[in-house]
Amino acid sequence: MARDMFEPIFKEIFPFWEKITDSDKEYICTNTSAVSYPKGTNVHDGNDCLGVVMLRSGCLRVYILSEDGKDITLYRLHAGDMCMLSASCVLQSITFDVHIDAEENSECYIVDGCAFSSVADRNPDIRIFTLETAVSRFSDVMWVMQQILFMSMDKRLAIFLYEEMNRTNSDIINLTHEQIARYIGSAREVVSRMLKYFSNEGFVEPSRKGIKILDKNRLRELAL
Amino acid sequence: MARDMFEPIFKEIFPFWEKITDSDKEYICTNTSAVSYPKGTNVHDGNDCLGVVMLRSGCLRVYILSEDGKDITLYRLHAGDMCMLSASCVLQSITFDVHIDAEENSECYIVDGCAFSSVADRNPDIRIFTLETAVSRFSDVMWVMQQILFMSMDKRLAIFLYEEMNRTNSDIINLTHEQIARYIGSAREVVSRMLKYFSNEGFVEPSRKGIKILDKNRLRELAL
Repeated sequence: MARDMFEPIFKEIFPFWEKITDSDKEYICTNTSAVSYPKGTNVHDGNDCLGVVMLRSGCLRVYILSEDGKDITLYRLHAGDMCMLSASCVLQSITFDVHIDAEENSECYIVDGCAFSSVADRNPDIRIFTLETAVSRFSDVMWVMQQILFMSMDKRLAIFLYEEMNRTNSDIINLTHEQIARYIGSAREVVSRMLKYFSNEGFVEPSRKGIKILDKNRLRELAL
Repeated sequence: MARDMFEPIFKEIFPFWEKITDSDKEYICTNTSAVSYPKGTNVHDGNDCLGVVMLRSGCLRVYILSEDGKDITLYRLHAGDMCMLSASCVLQSITFDVHIDAEENSECYIVDGCAFSSVADRNPDIRIFTLETAVSRFSDVMWVMQQILFMSMDKRLAIFLYEEMNRTNSDIINLTHEQIARYIGSAREVVSRMLKYFSNEGFVEPSRKGIKILDKNRLRELAL
């Protein structure tokens, strides 16, 4: 039953699928669950091992949290994306904790970490796939870090708005200042101040639904 | 000749060494060079592929650099350490550039990236070792990032001094304020101001050779 449900998907997303034994396939499928998270719920609080998360629909935000509650978005998962950093028992060398929230109603398949790990132990191809997935996130996180540490605020905000506009294929950015601040690792006050500046310059205007992009080209220039 | 020189070391540091063929061993050894870098020289400027670096003696600083010259130390390599992030042709999924400087006179063995990569392609054990080395640096870098983004300056400086004291087994920290600032991702002025505060509190005192730690316990408390 579980196998009928999950195998067609695993075949598609796991490059190692055809290289593992039939009993390993069976074992992974029977240790997979389909889980739904309503918008706004916490998916992972950094403790224990959540497992290997595959996002079927919705959006998950992966972030780190300081003791005093400050958070920095590392990346967001969209349909088709996979998260290995939530599987601490699969990746022993990952010693930091990530938190995950559902930003939209999200449907996931989650492979139990210990089950995945035990199959990976006897299949170098799985081990390589797992590590490569983690290493590619390393690059994402370094990008975020460079943005936060090196880049001036106006540029960061312009890049965010420009990318968001392209991603959603809409010139209305339907997010609060608070949410934008969290995405770009800043404070709400700073984002509000900068948006006011952008608005004065005629790049954007506040709209009932969020922020309306008026001048894509100048925003793009600023983002370069 | 190259094999006589490098094999005893590779046997020790590469967990995959006994699992690869004799011709692969030969190939890696003939593509390895022994290189010395005098203190202060730039070892890697972020471009091209330097190769897989093994540090035999000395100290290398691995850092990222912004366009306007601001830099953040990711980690330092000491004798016995290995750097994979300098081998961009081995790790395709690493898309950011690191820079490396010799902080002391340093002796390295460097395996050519393309040679290492071609042997790794036919040996999953090498591929796994390479990726695991990179992933464990991911954790180091996340630690640095959390320090910089989340932690107050006094705590960061206390941790740095305490760790440096233990690492060098000396209560004199033989570094300039400028150097300390670079290690902890801050500005010289901030470090000087904070050291003055530490000095007023009786934790440390300026000495001819650098900074003398007077009260290890209180420094340790601050670092907790």
